[in-house]
Amino acid sequence: MKAPWISYRPEIKVLDATIRDGGLINSHQFDDGFVKATYDTCVRAGVDYMEIGYKASKRVFAPDQFGDWKFCKEDDLRRILGDNDSPLKISVMADAGGKTDYKTDILPKEQSVIDVVRVACYIHQIPEAVDMIKDAADKGYEATCNIMAISTVHESEIAEALDIVAKSPASTVVVVDSFGSLYQEQIKNLVLQYQQALEGTGKEVGIHAHNNQQLAFANTIEAIIHGANRVDATLAGMGRGAGNCTMELLLGFLRNPKFKLRPVWEFIQQHVVPLQKTMQWGALPPFVITGQLNQHPRSAIAWLASENPENCADFYDKCIADV
Amino acid sequence: MKAPWISYRPEIKVLDATIRDGGLINSHQFDDGFVKATYDTCVRAGVDYMEIGYKASKRVFAPDQFGDWKFCKEDDLRRILGDNDSPLKISVMADAGGKTDYKTDILPKEQSVIDVVRVACYIHQIPEAVDMIKDAADKGYEATCNIMAISTVHESEIAEALDIVAKSPASTVVVVDSFGSLYQEQIKNLVLQYQQALEGTGKEVGIHAHNNQQLAFANTIEAIIHGANRVDATLAGMGRGAGNCTMELLLGFLRNPKFKLRPVWEFIQQHVVPLQKTMQWGALPPFVITGQLNQHPRSAIAWLASENPENCADFYDKCIADV
Repeated sequence: MKAPWISYRPEIKVLDATIRDGGLINSHQFDDGFVKATYDTCVRAGVDYMEIGYKASKRVFAPDQFGDWKFCKEDDLRRILGDNDSPLKISVMADAGGKTDYKTDILPKEQSVIDVVRVACYIHQIPEAVDMIKDAADKGYEATCNIMAISTVHESEIAEALDIVAKSPASTVVVVDSFGSLYQEQIKNLVLQYQQALEGTGKEVGIHAHNNQQLAFANTIEAIIHGANRVDATLAGMGRGAGNCTMELLLGFLRNPKFKLRPVWEFIQQHVVPLQKTMQWGALPPFVITGQLNQHPRSAIAWLASENPENCADFYDKCIADV
Repeated sequence: MKAPWISYRPEIKVLDATIRDGGLINSHQFDDGFVKATYDTCVRAGVDYMEIGYKASKRVFAPDQFGDWKFCKEDDLRRILGDNDSPLKISVMADAGGKTDYKTDILPKEQSVIDVVRVACYIHQIPEAVDMIKDAADKGYEATCNIMAISTVHESEIAEALDIVAKSPASTVVVVDSFGSLYQEQIKNLVLQYQQALEGTGKEVGIHAHNNQQLAFANTIEAIIHGANRVDATLAGMGRGAGNCTMELLLGFLRNPKFKLRPVWEFIQQHVVPLQKTMQWGALPPFVITGQLNQHPRSAIAWLASENPENCADFYDKCIADV
């Protein structure tokens, strides 16, 4: 019997998505102190990447309804990060589907404090996503491809998409379980499929898990076991719906001594505990139910904002009837 | 690629430990309505076993400080269960270490509504546990062996214990992650070790997981993948400290149509939501910290009852200094 969990793989790099994914709860309306504390925590904890928000189109998303981290304008970024004089790389997410004016809003790398552009798309948006990845790479960024809602996609379509992305300049292709619906065996199959399709390209496989079924951390471990070297987590698991793989669990599992837990607990004590009085996430019953049904969490989010958010059996009945 | 998760293994049997393990939060002081609702839910959900409490010694545990389910006297059981005219089997837990007057308090099977006696022990109590298992089997019960805190035990000691238990009349030997400290790879190793040691005896391997690291459900799946056919869960994950594998997640994963989810959600809506106003469990930061450190959760429980329960960084500092 072997005990690989007491050692570590130095290739594994951790991305913090607290502001980007957590911002889906509050329309990215964080105060500067919280964003700065997240940045400082990532630096101190030895995290490799911090995803600070979206590069969303102001045509599609009204600026008066969203905070700065929906758009990540350069002057807003520098207000928090300065010139980012740290080893931490800064990431932004750019959605396909016409949600990003990437040609104009993403500046040439030499004019930006951003290091990485992660292009998120649904399976039918792969051609647009590849254009976006090329644009980002041409401008000097590391670019990745995050195919969302992968639990709803046929393996043949995934294979086709991976063939296309394999020829793109993406550094990484991320397995994204948007609905928190996948079990370990499914994660294993997907990670192996991604790896085989990307073999010889030098591209890495990543994992972005949601916690609807309390499996975000477990599925992240599972992906690591099968070779994923790019892993997403958030402080206290903050993220839309059930939230994400929890940073404090992940860093406790990874044995690379460059990672430090103490700054994460300090952040949670000082910044998350107050926030939890007004923001809600976690594997609450409605999120369990949509996760089990392989559905987008939007109906669960709406239920939790309704008059009887704790009536989980009523929500279950509604979902079963809707299927 | 195979997809075993869409089918099921009929040999898998589920034990509900809500009252027994949840009772460790409130000294087993549940009202009768809650216990009866738990029983009804288990019957309606198709659960195989319900563990209703302990057979603790009244010499060791003062009856005025504990509810009825610490002792499970026959008349108390029948007040709730009647003659248990259902397919659900009734289990009690009997602790080794001098905590159970098993010779007198466990009646002959024909005088009891109990079906199963699960003997819980630490590794150094194996000889006493085997005596207790023999006593229960001689009296006509199914008996099991639950070796607790297995994350702190050397593999050589586990091997020795399994050799002894293999010769006992125990029907099942349960992998018990009392501290919620084990990762999937460790669960895999343990389940395989238990299976090899018990090969040819007809005994089953069980899993009892705690949720300190949000891995109770994932580790239960992991154990099932590697052959465990006896799995413990609790309604809403209720249990001491971080709680247990969550029944509603487990039944959503198992594809055997005999299991029904609707009664579980109904129970949670009607009985758990009110209870959560006075009882606390879940993967709260102090439980994450003791789980990561492979420690008993008692220091975390004490911290959560202290003046600053939300100061997780302070608790982390204290634990690190204590190691």
